[in-house]
Amino acid sequence: MENKSQHSSDPEVKKLGELIKHVRIAMLTTRTIDKKLHSSPLMTQEGDFNGDLWFLISKTSQKVIDINLDDRVNVTYSSPLGKYVSITGIAELVEDKEKVAALWSSSYQEWFPQGKLDPNIQLLKINVESAEYWDSHASHISRILEFAHIAKGGPSKKREHGTLDLNH
Amino acid sequence: MENKSQHSSDPEVKKLGELIKHVRIAMLTTRTIDKKLHSSPLMTQEGDFNGDLWFLISKTSQKVIDINLDDRVNVTYSSPLGKYVSITGIAELVEDKEKVAALWSSSYQEWFPQGKLDPNIQLLKINVESAEYWDSHASHISRILEFAHIAKGGPSKKREHGTLDLNH
Repeated sequence: MENKSQHSSDPEVKKLGELIKHVRIAMLTTRTIDKKLHSSPLMTQEGDFNGDLWFLISKTSQKVIDINLDDRVNVTYSSPLGKYVSITGIAELVEDKEKVAALWSSSYQEWFPQGKLDPNIQLLKINVESAEYWDSHASHISRILEFAHIAKGGPSKKREHGTLDLNH
Repeated sequence: MENKSQHSSDPEVKKLGELIKHVRIAMLTTRTIDKKLHSSPLMTQEGDFNGDLWFLISKTSQKVIDINLDDRVNVTYSSPLGKYVSITGIAELVEDKEKVAALWSSSYQEWFPQGKLDPNIQLLKINVESAEYWDSHASHISRILEFAHIAKGGPSKKREHGTLDLNH
């Protein structure tokens, strides 16, 4: 809990939290057993971001198999307003009934009919290592900010530049 | 060119083409030298999809370094209408001035000031191996279709199911 408040006060964490706050579906990319990259959608959480990302997934999902083989993942947030976020992090499969209860909403009932105690619920935590953020306008995409080691509490490397950065 | 028309007539290619047609920005995920996954936005093409994806990127981009190390990539399309596509494929860095000219639009002028002959332009082709597509509604995400070996001309494995598949 100490960590939580520490992270929330970091300007980088706050900024990233604002960027992803209203994006309802994120895409998680994992590496499969045959070394291919695969993405799938995840419902995002409504609570405040404090430096880690949390999701509820199914214990029987392909993601669980992939993460057990390779925990280095990426999560992207594409907002209808033209903002694009890439988060590089380490995935962790967590067992924590209190955390599940805190994240639970009725939207999950359809997939986990037994509710927040459904034994098929798997908590997924992403320990954020770095993040980048782009803004797109009529005809171009600019990279706005790049954070490194965002969730590690150490000194962050922050690059901010107004140069256009399409497809770079 | 024979391949092109062959691919375009495949129902899977046609369906995937419709799904990605109106998404202006895709996210490309690559694997970096330190084995982390990184994503970045790409402007998509307006032309018809025939089984391969094409993009114009910069020769000096991080993507080029990543792809030279590991060509197994993923491209996602998140549409504001709540449709999510994951494409697993093999990236190829191609030199083809005619193809660049065919894909060129004035939107690129800003990044490639010398126009379609700018020496910094790198053609990126994604040979699509498989694709999946989800549709999201008010409170859930359903996986609608899964194609394998979509661009290889061989028999495709197609799964279609109406079961809800959130976070699976």
